[in-house]
Amino acid sequence: MSDKAPWITYRPELKVLDCTIRDGGLINNSQFTDEQVRAVYQTCLAAGVDYMEIGYKNAPAQFPKSKYGAWRHCEEEDMRRVVGDHTFADTGLKLTAMADAGGKSDWKHQIIPAKDSVLDVIRVACYVHQISDAVEMIEHCTALGYETTLNIMAISVVAEADIDQALEIGAKSSVGTIVVVDSYGNLYREQIDHLVRKYTQAVEGTGKHVGMHAHNNLQLAFANTVEAIILGANRVDATLMGLGRGAGNCPMELLLGFLRNPKFKLRPVIEAIQNTIRPMRQQFDWGPSIPYNITGQMNLHPKSAMAWREGPAPDDYLGFYDQTLTDV
Amino acid sequence: MSDKAPWITYRPELKVLDCTIRDGGLINNSQFTDEQVRAVYQTCLAAGVDYMEIGYKNAPAQFPKSKYGAWRHCEEEDMRRVVGDHTFADTGLKLTAMADAGGKSDWKHQIIPAKDSVLDVIRVACYVHQISDAVEMIEHCTALGYETTLNIMAISVVAEADIDQALEIGAKSSVGTIVVVDSYGNLYREQIDHLVRKYTQAVEGTGKHVGMHAHNNLQLAFANTVEAIILGANRVDATLMGLGRGAGNCPMELLLGFLRNPKFKLRPVIEAIQNTIRPMRQQFDWGPSIPYNITGQMNLHPKSAMAWREGPAPDDYLGFYDQTLTDV
Repeated sequence: MSDKAPWITYRPELKVLDCTIRDGGLINNSQFTDEQVRAVYQTCLAAGVDYMEIGYKNAPAQFPKSKYGAWRHCEEEDMRRVVGDHTFADTGLKLTAMADAGGKSDWKHQIIPAKDSVLDVIRVACYVHQISDAVEMIEHCTALGYETTLNIMAISVVAEADIDQALEIGAKSSVGTIVVVDSYGNLYREQIDHLVRKYTQAVEGTGKHVGMHAHNNLQLAFANTVEAIILGANRVDATLMGLGRGAGNCPMELLLGFLRNPKFKLRPVIEAIQNTIRPMRQQFDWGPSIPYNITGQMNLHPKSAMAWREGPAPDDYLGFYDQTLTDV
Repeated sequence: MSDKAPWITYRPELKVLDCTIRDGGLINNSQFTDEQVRAVYQTCLAAGVDYMEIGYKNAPAQFPKSKYGAWRHCEEEDMRRVVGDHTFADTGLKLTAMADAGGKSDWKHQIIPAKDSVLDVIRVACYVHQISDAVEMIEHCTALGYETTLNIMAISVVAEADIDQALEIGAKSSVGTIVVVDSYGNLYREQIDHLVRKYTQAVEGTGKHVGMHAHNNLQLAFANTVEAIILGANRVDATLMGLGRGAGNCPMELLLGFLRNPKFKLRPVIEAIQNTIRPMRQQFDWGPSIPYNITGQMNLHPKSAMAWREGPAPDDYLGFYDQTLTDV
């Protein structure tokens, strides 16, 4: 973990991950067209983004192909249809997929050796009680030649002692990065500070990185990502126009506009937003509307807000507020 | 200036100002209906908000009544039509109006003695070079019996030495509060830290307060307001649904959801957003869309983005980006 960069310059170790297709896939069952995925891929290349998460490695048995699009499983032939024989060496871009712990991913069969895949990285997502499963997955993926991350989700509802234990286990594993994941978009900057410092301390001396994955329920995704960067997090997630589940993620256009590394280019991001992402608003709802503000403030999973936004009266904010107060 | 409050509790000195009608008036020439202003007023009362800024005290000669609504001038009879014989003693709510320095306000004639007005507070807005005019206005208003604030605008383009001089002058005046005003929505939290500390130091020992008025170009209005609060700012501005010029302001619904003082009530705010504010979206554009991101990142006045959003291709983000890069 390097020192803070001076304000006007930048930290070359800081790497940006685009998870537009992966996190966005949670609002459309990963039913992106090849053209949409290709547009995001080309944008990542043109913008100098370091990682692109192209989807989930989830089990077809549990997530049937009849209902979910190709980007819920990231099979090699689907990915190659879009990215060709992509390599990191050729492009400077690493492709990643996310595999969930706890049985959602048939990782023993689905994940092939890294040398045979266009993927460079597997990010393992788990709830804290699934940490042992997650570490088993990480060791498996490391053995297959992948760079890995550990994304402990919903961290705003995890007891401090459990976070400490999970970090201790993670720090002993072969994982490359441990990511602070604010799934509920609940955390304020003082809490981000606390967690980033804790994660940093946990991986000290191991060569592992700390990452940040923020949600925008309280319009704090960008602010909290900047905060994590200030404190030394070197792996940060963002999506085009904040596309992502519920309130969405840290907007890439804000993040790249903030970063001072001249390798990052904003123009292709704006172009992709205009041509590819914004048109999706006609089909899908995302962003920090009032129902997501409410679940964020109450430290709740956004699923009730998502259901409300898909229901008969998506803008009956007061109805959602009253229901939520009654339910909790 | 009090110490930081513990995380889980609150600082009773912290007071919230609603400037929905005043700042929102910059996108509709202050053409709010009486019903809309009354709804905001009733909301402030019900939500426990401390101050409501009901409009501008601008000169009718420069802002003719044929073009601008009542809330650009805040004449007594217009205000009383909505708030009746409002008093702070009866309601706990102070009414404020903003008067611009530099000739936009005919303050010598327009501002009547406080004892004859429903207004309790005059907030004086100026650019830094107008500081002498602003202080003259402040002394006049103090003599008339008003509480006052000094809002030095566009602070992100003011040289450090000029800020220091302006603060020295402000600190010697009779003003009650000096407000950090990020008109361009350009400042990141480290810059907010720097300014809030500087303003705090400037007023130390005078009994004056430091305020925060943020704009949301970079989705940082709420984050920066929280940051100012953490550092001890006791006067903070917000608007319902962030309604305000360009990218808008710190959203009241996020701010009240964050504050722990039980006197603040969120439900009336959500109700007003649903019934009064959100319907205005059919007529007016505000919020942190891409053009405002761009002017915020480039530290520019939002007027070019406002013109673009009102022009023939408001969602041609790339066109705006290219034009802006060419123009600067």
